[in-house]
Amino acid sequence: MVQAAKELIRQHGYNATAFADVLARSGASRGSVYFHFPGGKTQLVVEAAEAHAFEQVEIIDRVAAEATSAVQLIERYVDLGRDGMIASEYGRGCGVAPLITEGATQDSAEISETGRRAFSQMTDRLAFHFVALGVERAAARVLAEAVLAGIEGAMVTSRALRSPTPWESVRTVLAGHAAGVSAKRSKRPQD
Amino acid sequence: MVQAAKELIRQHGYNATAFADVLARSGASRGSVYFHFPGGKTQLVVEAAEAHAFEQVEIIDRVAAEATSAVQLIERYVDLGRDGMIASEYGRGCGVAPLITEGATQDSAEISETGRRAFSQMTDRLAFHFVALGVERAAARVLAEAVLAGIEGAMVTSRALRSPTPWESVRTVLAGHAAGVSAKRSKRPQD
Repeated sequence: MVQAAKELIRQHGYNATAFADVLARSGASRGSVYFHFPGGKTQLVVEAAEAHAFEQVEIIDRVAAEATSAVQLIERYVDLGRDGMIASEYGRGCGVAPLITEGATQDSAEISETGRRAFSQMTDRLAFHFVALGVERAAARVLAEAVLAGIEGAMVTSRALRSPTPWESVRTVLAGHAAGVSAKRSKRPQD
Repeated sequence: MVQAAKELIRQHGYNATAFADVLARSGASRGSVYFHFPGGKTQLVVEAAEAHAFEQVEIIDRVAAEATSAVQLIERYVDLGRDGMIASEYGRGCGVAPLITEGATQDSAEISETGRRAFSQMTDRLAFHFVALGVERAAARVLAEAVLAGIEGAMVTSRALRSPTPWESVRTVLAGHAAGVSAKRSKRPQD
């Protein structure tokens, strides 16, 4: 059910995702919903957003494990985003962003905290790996925030334009910056 | 009414923006709505998104008129986005993005075309000014797409985190890249 809710939120956003659609998609019975989600739609949405953030952190970890530089981590992570967008035929975006843009965070402190935590976790994880790959701490933070914003933005503009080019452009700019801050570091081995 | 609809979409998204709320906010009578918007909510939303894109193009033109470099254009445009986000107390985002993330573009060819055109216009305008400010055509296109994605993304992550730092990070990375592609150009005056 959480997976079904996440998928529907990615396709249609928060308000258009109804309990009934989640039931239909997951094949769960109405009774089981109220048993597993006594907190109603808020709980279902919170768990779906948490699942999305958890998956993204796992993907970041997997990509980082295979990357030998911050540039490589960025290029592969952006490419996965682009490939997912193309595979969905420009039909789905982020599993967290709709909670923010539809103001659900204004209505519920729990959803607000979930949105904040989801983006914090992804930023922290990216920054952690950038540091491990040789980027200085402050620069790693800047890079991580820019990567997340670039990807969130490409998920909107690429979907609207039905074109992969925003992903390519975001990758070029982010990887170029990462190369610069990595070079700066390696030029000062005495640090 | 178009302004009221745009404001509500920026705050609450597409599905949560009801005709009744637009009426209440704009003070228009129910009769005048059906007179001015015979196409119903679709027409209202399309005009609101067009108005948002038109305003953004005007802002880009105004900032570009005062900028002496691509770096300056980017820094000021990103700062305006950040200032607007802070002024709204992290309460409003883009006037076009919700149409995309809520899948309204899947339901209506007219809304889909409006979303595509809105982001195309903003990208084209940014690229046009970057070229005028000395960036090569292909690099200007890449930079424009990355600026738009970065800003769209910062509107989501900054709002979720209730923090201006994603704007600062996006600005650092974009301005750094712009400085690089501008320098490349000015180093080759024979081009």
